[in-house]
Amino acid sequence: MATILILGAGVMGSALAVPAADRGHRVRLVGTGFDREIISTLKRPGGVHPKLDAPLPRNVTPLDIDELTVAHLAEADAIVIGVASAGIEWAVDRLRALLQERKPVAFLTKGLVAAGATVRTYAETVPDAFDLVGRENFIGIGGPCIARELANRWPTASVYACADAVLAERLAGLMTTPRYRLSTSDDVTGVEACAALKNFFAIGVSAMQTRYLDTIRGTVAAKNPTAAAFNQAAREMAAITHHLGGRRETAFDLAGIGDLHVTVGGGRNSRLGHALGRGATVSAAMSGELAGETVEGIDTARALAGLVRSGELPERVPLATAIVEAVLDDQGFDFDFGSMGLQAA
Amino acid sequence: MATILILGAGVMGSALAVPAADRGHRVRLVGTGFDREIISTLKRPGGVHPKLDAPLPRNVTPLDIDELTVAHLAEADAIVIGVASAGIEWAVDRLRALLQERKPVAFLTKGLVAAGATVRTYAETVPDAFDLVGRENFIGIGGPCIARELANRWPTASVYACADAVLAERLAGLMTTPRYRLSTSDDVTGVEACAALKNFFAIGVSAMQTRYLDTIRGTVAAKNPTAAAFNQAAREMAAITHHLGGRRETAFDLAGIGDLHVTVGGGRNSRLGHALGRGATVSAAMSGELAGETVEGIDTARALAGLVRSGELPERVPLATAIVEAVLDDQGFDFDFGSMGLQAA
Repeated sequence: MATILILGAGVMGSALAVPAADRGHRVRLVGTGFDREIISTLKRPGGVHPKLDAPLPRNVTPLDIDELTVAHLAEADAIVIGVASAGIEWAVDRLRALLQERKPVAFLTKGLVAAGATVRTYAETVPDAFDLVGRENFIGIGGPCIARELANRWPTASVYACADAVLAERLAGLMTTPRYRLSTSDDVTGVEACAALKNFFAIGVSAMQTRYLDTIRGTVAAKNPTAAAFNQAAREMAAITHHLGGRRETAFDLAGIGDLHVTVGGGRNSRLGHALGRGATVSAAMSGELAGETVEGIDTARALAGLVRSGELPERVPLATAIVEAVLDDQGFDFDFGSMGLQAA
Repeated sequence: MATILILGAGVMGSALAVPAADRGHRVRLVGTGFDREIISTLKRPGGVHPKLDAPLPRNVTPLDIDELTVAHLAEADAIVIGVASAGIEWAVDRLRALLQERKPVAFLTKGLVAAGATVRTYAETVPDAFDLVGRENFIGIGGPCIARELANRWPTASVYACADAVLAERLAGLMTTPRYRLSTSDDVTGVEACAALKNFFAIGVSAMQTRYLDTIRGTVAAKNPTAAAFNQAAREMAAITHHLGGRRETAFDLAGIGDLHVTVGGGRNSRLGHALGRGATVSAAMSGELAGETVEGIDTARALAGLVRSGELPERVPLATAIVEAVLDDQGFDFDFGSMGLQAA
C-alpha cells in the first residue's frame, strides 16, 4: 500500500482517485479554494462528486486545502497535480510552501506557455520555478481519459512519462488496474506537448463534423473530411512536438492520437469546433452556446500563435494556422483542404 | 490531358473516375463480368451508378469488359485496378492478355496473401505474377476514402505509393484536385499492408463502440475504450507493417490511422465489429445482419492467422490475436484490456 496525494478535486483529479483506491492505496484528495463545495459534499456519507455520478471508494479521504499540512506531503509516496491549467502557478506555490523533499510529482494539468516566439511545456517551466520538482521527478500523464468514464471503470489506457524512466514505471506500477492500462515513456516533453496540443487540434478536427454534411442519404456528417483532418492533426502535432523538444513518435501514441481521438468525440473543445464548422466565430460561440465554459484549446492557440505565425516551424502546419487565426483574429474557421498534400498545379 | 483507364466499375473504381474527370482527363471506366448491369446503366443518358447517387462526368466513358482492347491499354497513361480483392488474379490475367508495355498501374484493390507463416502484399505478389507490372511501376493507393463521398466531392486525402517516387508523384499530380488531396510515398509495401490491415483492425476497434455502453447519462458508447483500442490498433498495425517489410511511420499516416479512422466510422467491417461487441460470433453475424455481404477484414484475418499465431512477431499484438481468434475459432470477440500496457502485477 502506498499513499497518493491528489491536489485538485475537479473532475479529473477526483476520477484518478478511483484506480488509486482500487489498488488499495491510501488516497488523499485535496480540493483547491474552488473545490470547497465538492470537498464538503464528498465528506458527507454517500456524498457524490457532482460530475462523477458515483461515490468515491472509502479509502479516498477528501481534504479541504486549509487542512493540507507538511505532514500530508511528507507521507505521500507520490503527488498528483490535478488543478485546472489556470491554477498551475498556485499549485506550484502550494508545493513550494509545503513540500520538503523530492518525490514523484505527476501532472494531470496541461498547458503550453508562450515565451516570445517559442513555447514551453510544464515539464520545463515547473522545474524552473521550483527545484524540488526537477526534470527527474516531474511525471507527465497523457492518454485518452474522459474522467467520468475512468471513475466508472470503463477501460482505457494512458502513458506516464518521466525523464527518469524508472520513476515513471514505479508510479505506473502503483496506479495500473485491469481497466486502467498504463505505458511509460521517457519523453516527458513530448507527452506534455501532446496533452496540450490535442485540445487545440480537436477544435479543428471537430469542425469537419459539422462543416461537411452528407445530405443525400439523411443529414449526417461526411466521414472522409474528419478522418483526413484527424490525420493532418496527427502530422502537425508530431511536427510541433518535435520542434518543442519532444519526439515525433509520442504524437502517434496515447498522448497524441489516442487522446485526440477521444477529445474529438466530445467535450468543450469539440463543441467549439462544431460551432466553428457551422460558421460561427470563436467570440460568438463563447458568448453563446459555450458561455461561461473554459475551452483549453483556446488558451493553447494563444500560446502557440507566436510560433505558428513566426514561420520558424520547419514543416507546414495549415490546420494549426487556421485554428490560430480563428481564435486570434476571430474571423471564423477557414481551413482549406487545398493546403494539404501536393502543392503542384 | 491524360488518358486514365480504370478496370472495375464497382463503387471505388467508379468514384475515382470523378477526380480524374474533374482534372479534364479522358477516363475509361471498364466493368468486370460482375459489372455488366452497372455499365449498361452508365451508358444510358443520365444513368447513375447505383451506389454513387449522381451521374459520372461526361468525360468518363463506360466500357464493358468485352469491349476492352489492346489499343485502350496502349492509349492509357495510367491504369487503375479497382476490382474486389477476390478479382485480383482475374485482373492480372486481363493485364497479361492485353498490356504490351510497362506503364503506371495503380491498385485500389487491397488484400494480404498468406504464404506459410508469412504474409505478402500485392506489391510483392503482383510483380511476381506479371513482370510488366514490376516493383517500379506498381502504385499502391491508401487513405481515408469512402467512395460515395469522393464521388460527391467532399474533401479527403490519400497517399500514392511507388518504389519509384517520381512515378508516384507523376500520377498523384495527374489525379489531385482541390478536394482530393494527395501525398506520395516510396513505401509501397507499407501502404499496401496498412490498406488491408485497417479493415481487419476496424473490426476490433468498432467492437468497443457496442461493448462498453455508458448507461448512466443516456445509453451511448463510452469513448475511452474505443480511443484506447484505436491507439492499440495503430501500434499493432505499425508492428505488422514493419514485419512485412514496410515502414512503421506509414501506419501513422493516411493509409494507416487516417483510413482506420474512417473505417471505424462505418461500413461492413465496422458493422461486424458492432455485432461482435454485442456478443455475437462471426458466423452468427455473417448469417444474420451481414448475410450476403463481403467483409474484407475477415479475409485479412484468415491471411494473418498463421503469422499472428506463429509467435514470430517481435511485438505483442493482443488486439490482432483477439480478432484472429474470433474469426478462425468463431468463439466471440474476447479482447482483454489487461493485455495492453504494463504487465506488472
